[in-house]
Amino acid sequence: MIENIVPNTLKKVVEEISNLPGYGEKSAQRLAVSILNMPRGESLELIKTFMELLEKVHPCRECGIYTEEEICSICRSEDRDKSIICVVEESFDAFAVERTGKFRGLYHVIGGRLSPLEEITPEDLNISTLIERVNKLHVKEVILATNPTVEGEATASYIYNLLKNKDITISRIGYGLPFGAVLENADDFTLSKALEHKTKL
Amino acid sequence: MIENIVPNTLKKVVEEISNLPGYGEKSAQRLAVSILNMPRGESLELIKTFMELLEKVHPCRECGIYTEEEICSICRSEDRDKSIICVVEESFDAFAVERTGKFRGLYHVIGGRLSPLEEITPEDLNISTLIERVNKLHVKEVILATNPTVEGEATASYIYNLLKNKDITISRIGYGLPFGAVLENADDFTLSKALEHKTKL
Repeated sequence: MIENIVPNTLKKVVEEISNLPGYGEKSAQRLAVSILNMPRGESLELIKTFMELLEKVHPCRECGIYTEEEICSICRSEDRDKSIICVVEESFDAFAVERTGKFRGLYHVIGGRLSPLEEITPEDLNISTLIERVNKLHVKEVILATNPTVEGEATASYIYNLLKNKDITISRIGYGLPFGAVLENADDFTLSKALEHKTKL
Repeated sequence: MIENIVPNTLKKVVEEISNLPGYGEKSAQRLAVSILNMPRGESLELIKTFMELLEKVHPCRECGIYTEEEICSICRSEDRDKSIICVVEESFDAFAVERTGKFRGLYHVIGGRLSPLEEITPEDLNISTLIERVNKLHVKEVILATNPTVEGEATASYIYNLLKNKDITISRIGYGLPFGAVLENADDFTLSKALEHKTKL
């Protein structure tokens, strides 16, 4: 029955959005309807901006952070410590680390995480370019800041194994309870990591 | 700091997506990055489909369901009972009701819900056209199938008040526990409605 009444173009757009990571059929529908419900001027503007995004924004040739230039401002900067590289999954992770103001080294965006389920293998990620950079820049420390998820952990340990025989410090971002968290609601993994990484006062 | 490193076009697209209902900054970022991360062919295809969606799909002139024709297939059908109208918030609600195969009347999409917070007033919804249709089609029953949320309730009771003096049956979709629900986890409102609407066996 539904096949007959949902317009084909609407079905097609919902299908295409559903392929995006994190989107299911319901959220895809919601996005499609939101765009249809917008005043026409705004929806056209949004699509124009998507187009502009694809034309102007691309990964930095060095570190892979999304930028409108060939080499991003961090890689070009004279003020950054080129002997430390912070490895992240996506550009927005780097933007988040940058927002803390606590890191003055370079980044390396690998563009995802290893995931057997999604068939993402090391070749699909920018890992070989990381090794090249580590060698070329005479890096002293690599901070593995992939997400603390099962896939993020696997990715970090894969990279660790590639680097462990080099004369560099390899570290993993700290684990523990997030600020403002309630112990009772924390999951077991987080809580056990928080205990493991207790700090002497 | 972040202002300097996030590309302007990326900031702009995240801002525009954040304006969509249900999207916050994080989910907007995720969508923007997903589109950037797609193979170029697929992302261009997605944008082309969005464009096609805006060109081809529009509300049915009669009932407001999204369709590629001037009048949707339900309004044109000879097999539907034109004396019953099911009032829904959005097209996808009608598609969901249609999927049950239990309803053979017509629909009326009001295009949202009353919401003082979002400044959505009766004039922003297709309510006056509903009243016109009720009169024109000699409707005998109106089923108010807006969502069982605070706003959906307010919208249903607003429409009820406009129709209550006419010689028609006005009903509200049934309330109760969703299929497969666990009593312990049900919220108080749902549970009290489920008790109120108990069925004699």
